[in-house]
Amino acid sequence: MSLTKIEYDRLIWINIERPTVEDINSFQDRFSFHPLALEDCLSRIERPKIDEYENHLFIVMHFPIFDSARRVSRPAEVDFFIGRSYLITVHDGILKPLNNFYLDCQENETTRVRYMSRGASTLLHTIIDRLVDYIFPILYKVDSQISQIEDEIFEADTRTLVQEISLVRRDIIALRRIIRPQIAIISNLEQKDRPFIREELDEYFGDILDHIYKVRDILDENYEVIADLSATTDSLLSHRINEVMRILTVISVIMLPLTLISGILGMNVRLPFQNYPYAFAGTMFLMMFIFLGMLLFFRHRNWL
Amino acid sequence: MSLTKIEYDRLIWINIERPTVEDINSFQDRFSFHPLALEDCLSRIERPKIDEYENHLFIVMHFPIFDSARRVSRPAEVDFFIGRSYLITVHDGILKPLNNFYLDCQENETTRVRYMSRGASTLLHTIIDRLVDYIFPILYKVDSQISQIEDEIFEADTRTLVQEISLVRRDIIALRRIIRPQIAIISNLEQKDRPFIREELDEYFGDILDHIYKVRDILDENYEVIADLSATTDSLLSHRINEVMRILTVISVIMLPLTLISGILGMNVRLPFQNYPYAFAGTMFLMMFIFLGMLLFFRHRNWL
Amino acid sequence: MSLTKIEYDRLIWINIERPTVEDINSFQDRFSFHPLALEDCLSRIERPKIDEYENHLFIVMHFPIFDSARRVSRPAEVDFFIGRSYLITVHDGILKPLNNFYLDCQENETTRVRYMSRGASTLLHTIIDRLVDYIFPILYKVDSQISQIEDEIFEADTRTLVQEISLVRRDIIALRRIIRPQIAIISNLEQKDRPFIREELDEYFGDILDHIYKVRDILDENYEVIADLSATTDSLLSHRINEVMRILTVISVIMLPLTLISGILGMNVRLPFQNYPYAFAGTMFLMMFIFLGMLLFFRHRNWL
Amino acid sequence: MSLTKIEYDRLIWINIERPTVEDINSFQDRFSFHPLALEDCLSRIERPKIDEYENHLFIVMHFPIFDSARRVSRPAEVDFFIGRSYLITVHDGILKPLNNFYLDCQENETTRVRYMSRGASTLLHTIIDRLVDYIFPILYKVDSQISQIEDEIFEADTRTLVQEISLVRRDIIALRRIIRPQIAIISNLEQKDRPFIREELDEYFGDILDHIYKVRDILDENYEVIADLSATTDSLLSHRINEVMRILTVISVIMLPLTLISGILGMNVRLPFQNYPYAFAGTMFLMMFIFLGMLLFFRHRNWL
Amino acid sequence: MSLTKIEYDRLIWINIERPTVEDINSFQDRFSFHPLALEDCLSRIERPKIDEYENHLFIVMHFPIFDSARRVSRPAEVDFFIGRSYLITVHDGILKPLNNFYLDCQENETTRVRYMSRGASTLLHTIIDRLVDYIFPILYKVDSQISQIEDEIFEADTRTLVQEISLVRRDIIALRRIIRPQIAIISNLEQKDRPFIREELDEYFGDILDHIYKVRDILDENYEVIADLSATTDSLLSHRINEVMRILTVISVIMLPLTLISGILGMNVRLPFQNYPYAFAGTMFLMMFIFLGMLLFFRHRNWL
Repeated sequence: MSLTKIEYDRLIWINIERPTVEDINSFQDRFSFHPLALEDCLSRIERPKIDEYENHLFIVMHFPIFDSARRVSRPAEVDFFIGRSYLITVHDGILKPLNNFYLDCQENETTRVRYMSRGASTLLHTIIDRLVDYIFPILYKVDSQISQIEDEIFEADTRTLVQEISLVRRDIIALRRIIRPQIAIISNLEQKDRPFIREELDEYFGDILDHIYKVRDILDENYEVIADLSATTDSLLSHRINEVMRILTVISVIMLPLTLISGILGMNVRLPFQNYPYAFAGTMFLMMFIFLGMLLFFRHRNWL
Repeated sequence: MSLTKIEYDRLIWINIERPTVEDINSFQDRFSFHPLALEDCLSRIERPKIDEYENHLFIVMHFPIFDSARRVSRPAEVDFFIGRSYLITVHDGILKPLNNFYLDCQENETTRVRYMSRGASTLLHTIIDRLVDYIFPILYKVDSQISQIEDEIFEADTRTLVQEISLVRRDIIALRRIIRPQIAIISNLEQKDRPFIREELDEYFGDILDHIYKVRDILDENYEVIADLSATTDSLLSHRINEVMRILTVISVIMLPLTLISGILGMNVRLPFQNYPYAFAGTMFLMMFIFLGMLLFFRHRNWL
Repeated sequence: MSLTKIEYDRLIWINIERPTVEDINSFQDRFSFHPLALEDCLSRIERPKIDEYENHLFIVMHFPIFDSARRVSRPAEVDFFIGRSYLITVHDGILKPLNNFYLDCQENETTRVRYMSRGASTLLHTIIDRLVDYIFPILYKVDSQISQIEDEIFEADTRTLVQEISLVRRDIIALRRIIRPQIAIISNLEQKDRPFIREELDEYFGDILDHIYKVRDILDENYEVIADLSATTDSLLSHRINEVMRILTVISVIMLPLTLISGILGMNVRLPFQNYPYAFAGTMFLMMFIFLGMLLFFRHRNWL
Repeated sequence: MSLTKIEYDRLIWINIERPTVEDINSFQDRFSFHPLALEDCLSRIERPKIDEYENHLFIVMHFPIFDSARRVSRPAEVDFFIGRSYLITVHDGILKPLNNFYLDCQENETTRVRYMSRGASTLLHTIIDRLVDYIFPILYKVDSQISQIEDEIFEADTRTLVQEISLVRRDIIALRRIIRPQIAIISNLEQKDRPFIREELDEYFGDILDHIYKVRDILDENYEVIADLSATTDSLLSHRINEVMRILTVISVIMLPLTLISGILGMNVRLPFQNYPYAFAGTMFLMMFIFLGMLLFFRHRNWL
Repeated sequence: MSLTKIEYDRLIWINIERPTVEDINSFQDRFSFHPLALEDCLSRIERPKIDEYENHLFIVMHFPIFDSARRVSRPAEVDFFIGRSYLITVHDGILKPLNNFYLDCQENETTRVRYMSRGASTLLHTIIDRLVDYIFPILYKVDSQISQIEDEIFEADTRTLVQEISLVRRDIIALRRIIRPQIAIISNLEQKDRPFIREELDEYFGDILDHIYKVRDILDENYEVIADLSATTDSLLSHRINEVMRILTVISVIMLPLTLISGILGMNVRLPFQNYPYAFAGTMFLMMFIFLGMLLFFRHRNWL
């Protein structure tokens, strides 16, 4: 575990990364947190929620992190304990905007003045605002993947295309799962008169809510677009099978009868016109005639 | 930025195209707008919304613009600040009906008399009404594309068809995404007793609401129709693969045995009937017999 | 325009077919209708709605008409103005039950006595009742088309089947779109205490509501059934491709090796057993052996 | 029509099968039923509903009957008129549990004592309870059909499978349509303080409600399972086409080059090695080499 | 039946496995349970519910058990009777966590002290908590199956893949059906002021609710992921058919014309260049030329 803290103007921000059972137990003594809340900090992935206790508010939120190994986004959890004069953030240390903001607060007096002088709830708002804004680069990545699929859909190798569509779709499914419950949390912070949350912040939480609704809308549209691209890929695959089949059929239908004719004339039995001087030329003429007739027939049926 | 204004009968209409940060900041001094609202004017695409402030109403709306490069509709944003004696429109300058109406107000006394003498909310209503009516030509384009696909579905080249269906579907998805949140805005303007909106206008906003519901209904029906056309194309593709396969199979099943017979008789070993005078005629007869038998068999199975 | 009227027992029924702008303007003078309502009468297709004005009720309703050219149902609009002592119907003249009922009222004293002696709202109820009942023949047509598809699905030519399914599905989509908003109108007439609508009629409008719910239920079930038939057709098409492929493969796998053998024995090089007397019989025996072996193999794999 | 009745302890149960217009009219004189309710008894299929009249309650309910000709379930209607001292059941006579229970009441004193001594509503409850329980055997039939499809999906003939899946799906669609509106009826009988329904029965109607919810849940799950089976069948069909194609391709790719070689050596031109003694053996060796090379290549690509 | 009980500190826990009709009847005498509740204990699968009676609460819940024979999860029922001083659990004896916890209570004094000293509702909470936690291992199994499918999707044998996807999807369908109604039960226990449930437990039931919501979320995401994997498999199958078709077509288009040429030159008629010394070499050159031309053509069309 790493536990550090910043104190400024009667407000303490305690930042805890990867806490262990002992760390959590030591909290119990210092702050009188509810045992269920402390338990939730330890479990790997808890559902996002707001629990109101007598002397503090416990908030669990998730933000997406792109897992480049599995090529899909996964949730990173942040737990907030907010009291009258303190904010405790518990997380895995992988959310860059939170780390950066903490460092900024630690090092720059101006940042501290700006964000820590108006109480714990303003600090909470700033952290959530930055974490929500951090979702957009992930969306832009998805957007650019979709644009690339759109550009390549009529040219690219289908196997790669199918794989790409599947991966993007699974990423969108994961992102939607992560984003959806956060909306409930933020809209809850905006609407209700929560203790420890200053009322003037409602408008500001409303602004975050606008952003997260935008995230949801982009994901919903992307999901529909990727479904359309998947359907289009399937139609194109059927179309290509059809094209290839047509060429094979045309070539077989033209070649097989000609091969049969040459086979018949190659039989080792007495052919009636075996010794006619123009037998070969006549056969060639017949073959050419069949060949051209077939071509005309297929052109007539719009196969060529 | 271009900032122009029209003053008439104690009402000022300020029209701002492509504002910069400095433009926005200069506003703050003149009108006492809320900083969050001003921030929203600058961000590329904001969610549609109505924010009620003490001395003005801030409305963000989107209207579809067809992007002919990407062949899909995209949202164009208009922001309205409406106060007791002014209306401010902030936009990108690409919405023709808004530009035209502004020019018309600037140049024609009669237009000004008609639309600017009954306060800012009547002006707002007129602008939104014209912008909503401007959506219909875009829908007619989609409609005519669908009609064309319907006409060609049993004849056209499938590749083009698949491409057309995919593009139209993506356009409908985009249009639905743009239209949906506007309904909430307009229905909000109609129902609630909003400050700065004259109550007599409720019926007129109700009329706009009817139009936008009609837009939504047309899009919903178009979406279902395009899904049906897509499914039909897929079925037709399977059907055509089936047809082509059948022809290939018929021709192979008829030709391969005949070719085998000719091959057997072409072997360089002592054929038992090699020197019979009617060997060739007999072989021909056998082949014709097999050929006709096969034809009858396929006709019996309804393959021909 | 054609404007005719029937007067009976202090009630006037004015029936207007295909009104023009001038016709509508002349109304304004006579009845004091709201300008928005009059505008709605002129626009091609208005959304169904009930608008309550001071001295009259304005109702827009749609009923399906089968367009045999495009082979799909489309909405026909009827506008009702209902006041204390008059009912005005504005329509295109293509709804047979309305035309017939009007003629009947015009010509038969008994019909007039029965339907026009209890006020405008009873007349309105009768007209809507007949128009709703007129939807059922259209449904029976759809029903019989579906039954026909069900009967033919395992036998018919797939191309016709795919085309039929697509047309029926598009017709059901159109009908659902037309019916859905009418439910809101009729349920509104039943529930609310509307001016100009006699309260005793609530039960009778409830009866119409039952009918239109039945229409909706039939359409919903038909939609699900046609989706199932479409999926079944696709499965059958795949199955048939599979069958055809299997026959082609069996015939190729049997014939190609035999053809190769005959080809080898037809080579113009010194064949080791060229002059053996039983070379031909031996080859034939070998071929028959391979042929039967293949047959057994395919039977074993259940391909035959 | 057949009209019979049972009288016991001041309660009359009148059971009417297949009533005609005259029968219904004769009712009007005896009981003062609402004309709309009587009309509903005659129409072929009425929507399920509860209509409350001054001196009686009119209930229309549907229960599924398996139509073995069309192989799909269809609704059988029962109409109930319930008053203070009578229960009238109007139906088609095809619902066995109703017929059996009526016979039982007619013949057995004990049944009459048990079910007819506590008023009309207890009798109504008993009839509905038995009719709902009668749905389960139909569900078990569907269940066993699904189990059979599950067992056969990887072995059975696909054509039969596709047909079976389509029939079961259509049956489930029909059953869901029939069951859904009954839930509203029964939950209505449970919740509201209905006249003519004893309040103590609420718990018992709640029990029926539990059963019909169970029916709905089973149907919903079955619908999802059949959709999965249908998708699986389609995937398997594609897989099989793929398998067959692979065999055809392998055999063609191996045989065609060998046939070409034999064809070249069968040409009637001066072959350079025509008279070499080992020409045949060399050719055979070359063919074998190509054959084995191809086999290794396909094994390497995992095609064999 | 096996009936055992544990008594501790004025609380009796009666545990009944596989009760028969007689067992249930004997209850009636001892506790005054409602006959409907007792009936529900006997029926094979009852819907989850909470019934409130005068002197006890009757709760039916289901928990998933993996049926390894059918390879799908099925519900195991537990019925709870909770009164002021007793808790009765009725079940099939196949839910391990319930059996284990019962044994633990029986054998260990400490367990009894911990869970049985705070009344029947705390005991109920503990049992439900353990049963809900027992669902997670089942989910992890599903999760690992999905991961395995994800890993193998581009390599594995499609037949196994299709079978695996179908089985996992059916398992998820079953699990969702089992989980969904439990949410209503637990959220009911949390929210309402239920008799026999201590109010302080609300937070603890809220914690179980969080867990079961998590279960639901995981299942919903898994369902979407498996749907995507199924669609991807179908696309891949089409892609592979396309690939195989392409190889077959390329080989046929190249080989068939060459075979025809060799066939023509093998005809037993006077060939014009039969005795030219370079006839063979010229033919070979022509064939090579056609072969290379074809290769270039297919490379040009990106088929190779």
